[in-house]
Amino acid sequence: MQTEVYTAELDRNVHDVIRDFADLRRRGELENVHYLFVTDKIKKLHFGIELDSLLVFDFTKTLRENIKESPETFKPVVAQDREKIEDVVHKFREYDLNSMPIVNKHGVLLGRITSDDIYDIINDQATDQMYHLAGVNDDAEEEEDILKAGKSRAIWLSLNLVTAIAASLVIGLFAETLQSLVALAILMPIVASMGGNAGTQSLTVVVRQLALGNIAKQDAYRTIRKEVLISVANGLFFAVIMGVIASFWFDRGMLGVVIALSMIINLLIAGFFGSVIPLVLKKLKVDPAIGSTVILTTLTDVVGFFSFLGLATIILL
Amino acid sequence: MQTEVYTAELDRNVHDVIRDFADLRRRGELENVHYLFVTDKIKKLHFGIELDSLLVFDFTKTLRENIKESPETFKPVVAQDREKIEDVVHKFREYDLNSMPIVNKHGVLLGRITSDDIYDIINDQATDQMYHLAGVNDDAEEEEDILKAGKSRAIWLSLNLVTAIAASLVIGLFAETLQSLVALAILMPIVASMGGNAGTQSLTVVVRQLALGNIAKQDAYRTIRKEVLISVANGLFFAVIMGVIASFWFDRGMLGVVIALSMIINLLIAGFFGSVIPLVLKKLKVDPAIGSTVILTTLTDVVGFFSFLGLATIILL
Repeated sequence: MQTEVYTAELDRNVHDVIRDFADLRRRGELENVHYLFVTDKIKKLHFGIELDSLLVFDFTKTLRENIKESPETFKPVVAQDREKIEDVVHKFREYDLNSMPIVNKHGVLLGRITSDDIYDIINDQATDQMYHLAGVNDDAEEEEDILKAGKSRAIWLSLNLVTAIAASLVIGLFAETLQSLVALAILMPIVASMGGNAGTQSLTVVVRQLALGNIAKQDAYRTIRKEVLISVANGLFFAVIMGVIASFWFDRGMLGVVIALSMIINLLIAGFFGSVIPLVLKKLKVDPAIGSTVILTTLTDVVGFFSFLGLATIILL
Repeated sequence: MQTEVYTAELDRNVHDVIRDFADLRRRGELENVHYLFVTDKIKKLHFGIELDSLLVFDFTKTLRENIKESPETFKPVVAQDREKIEDVVHKFREYDLNSMPIVNKHGVLLGRITSDDIYDIINDQATDQMYHLAGVNDDAEEEEDILKAGKSRAIWLSLNLVTAIAASLVIGLFAETLQSLVALAILMPIVASMGGNAGTQSLTVVVRQLALGNIAKQDAYRTIRKEVLISVANGLFFAVIMGVIASFWFDRGMLGVVIALSMIINLLIAGFFGSVIPLVLKKLKVDPAIGSTVILTTLTDVVGFFSFLGLATIILL
């Protein structure tokens, strides 16, 4: 926020207001001005006049007289000092603003926020989302301190280690099955990997669309439905392909059936949780990008290994 | 780009220029104006005067006379009509602009681009990057056409299937080793998963910092060094933890040594290629976000399985 603003009181003459501005300008006190903020004696903000409108005013009259004809035109879009920054960015985009006055809860003008602040904030928000999806902390990365960045990343990797061990425990349940058919060990990462990737696609789209404000509350069901449909359609497609490949590779038709079925199950799970996880986090007022990847890939790993090895135990042994 | 611009020729009187503007404004022909563009008779752009500067001009003189005192102040930052959009965004951010004139190669004014265009472009670029990292195509997702989005995602999943099969072929090389020690099948996804995650952290940071213009050409070596250092440090840390867990889990000390060594190798590879892949793609003038995830995870899967099962064959059998 910048605290230097161009202000004037309602009853001043436009000519004088512009002359004052010229004086301030010559002293180098005001830069990058787009608005004249019209206040009363206690600095309460009443109107915001863009300079292109000010140019069209009758310079011989007062601001009040000029505004009187269409006061609603000059009611500024304001931000409260305690408002959330994403709501402010949203207003900038919605109203195509270049500058916005900031007021306290009594409506008193405190300063302004300008488009160059908004460029930075939009970029920072996007960086945050990308980093959170990948398990990276923006603040820790910003400095050149390798130790700090490394520690912050290690926290995420610790979480990932725990979930990888959980997936391994699931595999461990089927130790006997694996021992009797080594082809299962060879093929099992494929089902988990496809689930993880399909789920990440859904997750990324939903996280980003939530951040851009493109998914309203009533769209939740439609969003989940879309992601599940896409995921199941691709699940069926890759089930056939991988089923055929596995059947020929290990010369065993039923192995193809097992991998095909588990592929469909895992991609269904991937699409469903890829959309549900960020929607639920958003509902709980948690950043949908934080932690959603690790929850999702734990699910696709566990379901991938369990369905593949479980079906193999039932069908093949 | 908007083609309605506020223009005037150099030798006109400021008072007249403002009166003309008021007329246009009353007819509702010009909105959201921040600049007066000063041109010559053949529409070639000479100066850009922000309205806050125009207010300070001597209204009785011509534009030329007012500008004469400090003409360099009014040299506008312009965009050529064939300039790349990311370069235009970069100028907006660098010079804190709200509006920028667009000229053809002869310097003739064609229109203007304003901050609300830039808000959208910054957001679109970030969406593109996030989507590309996850294997999603922005254009295909934009419409409500589920079939189109599904097909576009399937292309990416096909690539992933090929690389997953490649990783499985690597596992297949060690079929005998796996058969003689089922613990290896249980533990092997852990090494691949940790490598994939650590690599994705490096990749995401480098892709984003490249996009934000924060990594210059001479920073390539320093960037790779930083990512490898972080990755190896975390590799050592998790090697010890996972080594101890694996030793106790399967009551076999040397199994711990095998998983520890392969963890270090795979995280070294992850940090190295997580930074090198986007840097090389950028150098080749390819979008560093497209395809980099699939190249990286192929490498971390292959190296993860190969190093773990290879070391196990040498050390344990």
